[in-house]
Amino acid sequence: MKFACAQSTLLKALNIVSKAVTSRTTIPILKGILIRVTEDGSVIMSASDLDISIEDKFETVEYEPGEVVVQAKLFGDIVRKLPTDIIYMEEKDGNFNIKCSSSEFNIVGSSADEFPSMNVDEYDEKLSFDRDILKDMIRKTVFAASSDESRGVITGVLFELKNGNFNMVALDGFRMAVAREAIKSEYDQNIIIPARTLLEVSKIINESGVEKNTIDVLLSDKRAVFIIGEIKVAVRLLSGDYIDYENILPKESQIRVTLNRTDLIDAVERASLLSRAGKNNLIRVNILDNILEITSESEEGKGREEVMISKDGKDLAIGFNSKYFEDPLKYIEDETVTLLFNTPISPCIIKPVEGNSFEYLVLPVRLLGN
Amino acid sequence: MKFACAQSTLLKALNIVSKAVTSRTTIPILKGILIRVTEDGSVIMSASDLDISIEDKFETVEYEPGEVVVQAKLFGDIVRKLPTDIIYMEEKDGNFNIKCSSSEFNIVGSSADEFPSMNVDEYDEKLSFDRDILKDMIRKTVFAASSDESRGVITGVLFELKNGNFNMVALDGFRMAVAREAIKSEYDQNIIIPARTLLEVSKIINESGVEKNTIDVLLSDKRAVFIIGEIKVAVRLLSGDYIDYENILPKESQIRVTLNRTDLIDAVERASLLSRAGKNNLIRVNILDNILEITSESEEGKGREEVMISKDGKDLAIGFNSKYFEDPLKYIEDETVTLLFNTPISPCIIKPVEGNSFEYLVLPVRLLGN
Repeated sequence: MKFACAQSTLLKALNIVSKAVTSRTTIPILKGILIRVTEDGSVIMSASDLDISIEDKFETVEYEPGEVVVQAKLFGDIVRKLPTDIIYMEEKDGNFNIKCSSSEFNIVGSSADEFPSMNVDEYDEKLSFDRDILKDMIRKTVFAASSDESRGVITGVLFELKNGNFNMVALDGFRMAVAREAIKSEYDQNIIIPARTLLEVSKIINESGVEKNTIDVLLSDKRAVFIIGEIKVAVRLLSGDYIDYENILPKESQIRVTLNRTDLIDAVERASLLSRAGKNNLIRVNILDNILEITSESEEGKGREEVMISKDGKDLAIGFNSKYFEDPLKYIEDETVTLLFNTPISPCIIKPVEGNSFEYLVLPVRLLGN
Repeated sequence: MKFACAQSTLLKALNIVSKAVTSRTTIPILKGILIRVTEDGSVIMSASDLDISIEDKFETVEYEPGEVVVQAKLFGDIVRKLPTDIIYMEEKDGNFNIKCSSSEFNIVGSSADEFPSMNVDEYDEKLSFDRDILKDMIRKTVFAASSDESRGVITGVLFELKNGNFNMVALDGFRMAVAREAIKSEYDQNIIIPARTLLEVSKIINESGVEKNTIDVLLSDKRAVFIIGEIKVAVRLLSGDYIDYENILPKESQIRVTLNRTDLIDAVERASLLSRAGKNNLIRVNILDNILEITSESEEGKGREEVMISKDGKDLAIGFNSKYFEDPLKYIEDETVTLLFNTPISPCIIKPVEGNSFEYLVLPVRLLGN
């Protein structure tokens, strides 16, 4: 097996597929990258940690077909440090030879036989998403999924296709993020993708520089394969039924507050400096006429912040975990946000002023006296 | 005690003095910053970890004199997150009140009585250095000092003033860096400054944005105080006699090699990818006619690099720890460097082609067969 390509081409593919390489595995072959040169001169690189498998492809003109597995870290380090020139590579007697300019390396290769295959030819259904919408919806939800690996389906993000709507949902028992878009699709379908792997998919979409606006997703029973230009990312699906999230969303709200998003982020960040040490990162939010006051307290001192608001409804004092209250504000683009409340012990909704393309629900922390 | 100042002024001083705050101390007061407002409206902030004490000063117009100690981390976090506006601060009943725009904080203060004082009025001698020369000489030597805290004087950097020359020397038993400048000074003086604190001094010179070209150093028996504009940095000196470094430098060299610095760095970095796992980060350097060949080997594979050279003297095969061989190359500005050798078991000198303002000595690693 041999091939030649520009250092930049090889490095780009390596950076993508390396995301599936884990250093924590006890299976040595999974620390490797499979390099396969096909009969027609495609170089296919792939890696897998069994939860996520990534494959990237580029063409070469000077080649002999074959395949080999090389240590991902060492090969990556070498390619990164080589000059921006043509790299000549050849597998010979189990060794992988790398030549570029005045450098030469011979690194140990392994047989490709044991490498997990990523057969993407069989699938039951094919969905198509707009690249930018998919990226945006992942960004707005994935952070809210549970990071506690024992929590089953809620460690994943729900993709719900229903009546021409595409909804993405993540929750962790304290808060929930819902992103919604209208799409053209005749399918009704629910799949749950582990948040950790979905985050990698999103990074790959960002870094791929893919020009195509559509990302296809091939679905089979236990797996989804994202087709991002020449890159294929296979992820294991979570099985089970997702939480009935629509029933969690309040049907109405008695208090509606509108305020500047940046002012609110700054105020919460400062107030939380004195809440960290305390329990639950507690901040107290007081809604008083046209002021939203945030107070916090720890053994180190007290903080107090004021933000101007416009309000419909009565005054309210309510407590939050500052992190859960602040997180969604970073994912709303609009400069003005709406907060919806009912009582000090019922959930708060945070959303843009217009539309329902993003809704975030956060449970309050009970305050003494409430 | 009270004063007001711009957020940017306060933040700048805080960033400087915070370098002396250690989180690892068991003495609670050392996690604090002393803020003192003098009768004439100077705000003096200071911090100390007993090895290094830093003081910065700025003027204020609205003030009441007094002093208080506040937690460095909390106060720094608050100031960093406040808007770029005027901050009003006041000490009252042991609490420190901070007001800025629509934010207010009350943080716990401590009495200034226990805070270590940094009395800089008494000193025996005053030296003056050019700021840029001092910075440059620190950069070229400090990395070579021993990081093993049990090694006494060689954990420090020697400042040697002798016959109108200023020499700075650091060594760790495997390599040695010497920087030299001619200066106007009638003193002969040897002081040894711990490398760790000297590195902080160098960072402070960089960040201070001080316009003055001269840095004064006040010397007393056990301490040196660097005067960097309004900033004063007191460092504890190491006692004892430094190594007789001039005797370590070879008097002559039988092999002289001249080559491109960047080519050499790149070649060593690549070769060292296959030396890390092996013993001593060993790379083998073969000097053959007009080629310097670098080879390396580990259980993961082999690497081979070639760099064009011009040479006086015979061929040579010699081994090095790749890190010790590469380090000095980063601190030479010239695009061409000179390597001086004698035998495979005698030290190598790395230096710019011209002059002796920088010389680096590295001991070889014995190769099998040498």
